[in-house]
Amino acid sequence: MKPIADYSSEDLSALLNDLEVQYKEAQAQNLKLNMARGKPATTQLNLSNALLDKMESYTLADGTDARNYGILDGIPECKKLFGELLGINPDQIIIGGNASLNVMFDTLSFLCLFGTGGCEPWIYSKHNGNPVKFLCPVPGYDRHFTICEELGIEMITVPLNEDGPDMDIVKKLVSEDESIKGIWCVPLHSNPQGVCYSDEVVEQLASMETAAKDFRIFWDNAYGVHHIYEDVALKDIIKECEKCGNPDRVYYFFSTSKISFPGAGIALVASSPANIKELKGHMSAQTIGHDKLNQLRHVQFFKTPENIRAHMKKLAEELKPKFDMVLDKLDETLSGSGLASWSNPKGGYFVSLDTLPGCAKRTVELAKNAGVTLTGAGATYPYGKDPKDSNIRIAPTYPTIDELEKAMDIFTLCVKIAGIEKLLEK
Amino acid sequence: MKPIADYSSEDLSALLNDLEVQYKEAQAQNLKLNMARGKPATTQLNLSNALLDKMESYTLADGTDARNYGILDGIPECKKLFGELLGINPDQIIIGGNASLNVMFDTLSFLCLFGTGGCEPWIYSKHNGNPVKFLCPVPGYDRHFTICEELGIEMITVPLNEDGPDMDIVKKLVSEDESIKGIWCVPLHSNPQGVCYSDEVVEQLASMETAAKDFRIFWDNAYGVHHIYEDVALKDIIKECEKCGNPDRVYYFFSTSKISFPGAGIALVASSPANIKELKGHMSAQTIGHDKLNQLRHVQFFKTPENIRAHMKKLAEELKPKFDMVLDKLDETLSGSGLASWSNPKGGYFVSLDTLPGCAKRTVELAKNAGVTLTGAGATYPYGKDPKDSNIRIAPTYPTIDELEKAMDIFTLCVKIAGIEKLLEK
Repeated sequence: MKPIADYSSEDLSALLNDLEVQYKEAQAQNLKLNMARGKPATTQLNLSNALLDKMESYTLADGTDARNYGILDGIPECKKLFGELLGINPDQIIIGGNASLNVMFDTLSFLCLFGTGGCEPWIYSKHNGNPVKFLCPVPGYDRHFTICEELGIEMITVPLNEDGPDMDIVKKLVSEDESIKGIWCVPLHSNPQGVCYSDEVVEQLASMETAAKDFRIFWDNAYGVHHIYEDVALKDIIKECEKCGNPDRVYYFFSTSKISFPGAGIALVASSPANIKELKGHMSAQTIGHDKLNQLRHVQFFKTPENIRAHMKKLAEELKPKFDMVLDKLDETLSGSGLASWSNPKGGYFVSLDTLPGCAKRTVELAKNAGVTLTGAGATYPYGKDPKDSNIRIAPTYPTIDELEKAMDIFTLCVKIAGIEKLLEK
Repeated sequence: MKPIADYSSEDLSALLNDLEVQYKEAQAQNLKLNMARGKPATTQLNLSNALLDKMESYTLADGTDARNYGILDGIPECKKLFGELLGINPDQIIIGGNASLNVMFDTLSFLCLFGTGGCEPWIYSKHNGNPVKFLCPVPGYDRHFTICEELGIEMITVPLNEDGPDMDIVKKLVSEDESIKGIWCVPLHSNPQGVCYSDEVVEQLASMETAAKDFRIFWDNAYGVHHIYEDVALKDIIKECEKCGNPDRVYYFFSTSKISFPGAGIALVASSPANIKELKGHMSAQTIGHDKLNQLRHVQFFKTPENIRAHMKKLAEELKPKFDMVLDKLDETLSGSGLASWSNPKGGYFVSLDTLPGCAKRTVELAKNAGVTLTGAGATYPYGKDPKDSNIRIAPTYPTIDELEKAMDIFTLCVKIAGIEKLLEK
């Protein structure tokens, strides 16, 4: 398609008429396609089915019966496996329940209820009329924003550049405003754009001056081993924080939700010895321990970090044709049009697309009315409000290739229609 | 043994000398026995080993793939199974994670963070200098007390009679003091005494006037189907609260920790529609959903409430000889002595023993020095402080019968020595 700016207003109207005919044809197919959530496809899940086999042994190396009570912070073999995978000291890891989202919520709610490092509980600040604020690089992950909203933490957006959050803005904000207590980060293959943080950004996050003594980085490395097109290295934020004299600054989250089974996987939080001790203190009132059998199941299935990486290669082979399909369709139909721009992720679960300003909601609506469900426009922003109304998250993993092809044909059609409608309004 | 009151002081000294000789012989055996925690024995766990078999199917009746994301509040077949078992409407049930302790902590922390029914968050009251208080029938379960302590909730003890908490005291306290926001209850085979609440007590708990609008009963029915000597019925507290116009008063907790595997079981909370809606609201920020595969595993293993009851009969057959051993030993050695009194539970996990005042700590210490670990004296009271220093919790489930016999011989010896030492002090 030639650049939209080269069209006369008559040509645009004619083009819109053509596109509307195609749209009606698409509607007539009565399709029901979903590109909304980052759910693994059945073929991906099948690669982990051996996790459902009979457990031949339930005794740990130290003799503990994994069927019985005991062990607050995770079985040693599980801490070792994921410690080696991520390059983290197992003593600085707590294995949580079935999902890292739960560990993130609990960690943040502990900070609200109890504070950290002797500082005031965050909910007291709020009750005293002093808001607690978090920086949210945007676009970002809607469930991070929901946690903040639920806990009454105000969200301040900062731009997410190609190498991470805009650190000039971040550094200025955190150095000036004591009420900014944290930042959400998805440092590898970010949701939705696939941004990977550069070493320089990691170093600055670890070293920057913060007005709040209890400033915390919520480092959600959800896609830490989820490379598709290219392996990307990530600088070690825990060691970097240590080196900069800010050892307690970071909580590092990870899970196997998109490695083994979502909702039946293993989640973990890693942090400084002081933070781990504090978290274990709160946890010891909350639980006797998480599901050790599921931890052992994962250890018996994966055995080594190398096997996890090999497993991720197989998953990448499942995902690559789907990402190819999305990116090829975008290239074919929208490249050079000036109607949209999009990310070219190296891994992760999403492609992020920006329409012309003011066209995201309309695009999602058009797609919905033609049977294609997308993530709600605005979901990638705090409070569901995208100020430019332009960002749309495409989740290519769950549909089949055939479904994806049909869905992308309809979606790109909708991007064009919404864009031209907007241009004709002016 | 004849009543201790019938001994002269010389006879007592002579008896103590004899007992101390026996104690030294016991010490010389270098035993290592544990009657401390309510852990199932290996033979009990083995009865649930089919839960570790290969899962042949992971598709729910409604077509949901249990390996993937989705379903916040538990799979329908699991809510149905436990709803039928407990006589609770499945719509009023949320299936939680791997342990009810976690669900209780989270429920209480939600009340602290968010309040309920439009009332002020409990932590705000605390921050305003108005303490939040819970009633704790004593002796009781140490982990309930730990949750309160962690969340800064003050504990007021009330006596636990043979039919439940002393309701005259409870009713007076809750009607007068607005800062009393709740009560812990283990209504069947209570930990540690095995008390079962009478219908009248349940009715009064449901109907009583409370000064606090947001007064809540934490109904931990941990031993709801754990009958050993006799099946005991429990009046339906949820329906009773409804009937009395206090539908939102009760949170009902249950788990399979001592039915299937501790820490790898199924936990649930049940409550009024309004409370369930509120809890789901908070939960939806905390998690996408708990482990559906483990829920399905339990449904596939148990299938029907009748099968769960049959399974509990088998567990009771494992436990009865152990409870017989404990109770027979107590009868043989201490009955009529005046040195101790103890409970005769109809089910559950514990026997509760009261020494002479001021003798519990000394008894536990003596036992420890002869190789028998008991639950710490005081653990059955808030803040670990038994004002009479007399209550000791005996947990007979984990040791073998042989170990239990040896442990009880040493334990009863220690009860006598500590008691006579105390009498000779005077």
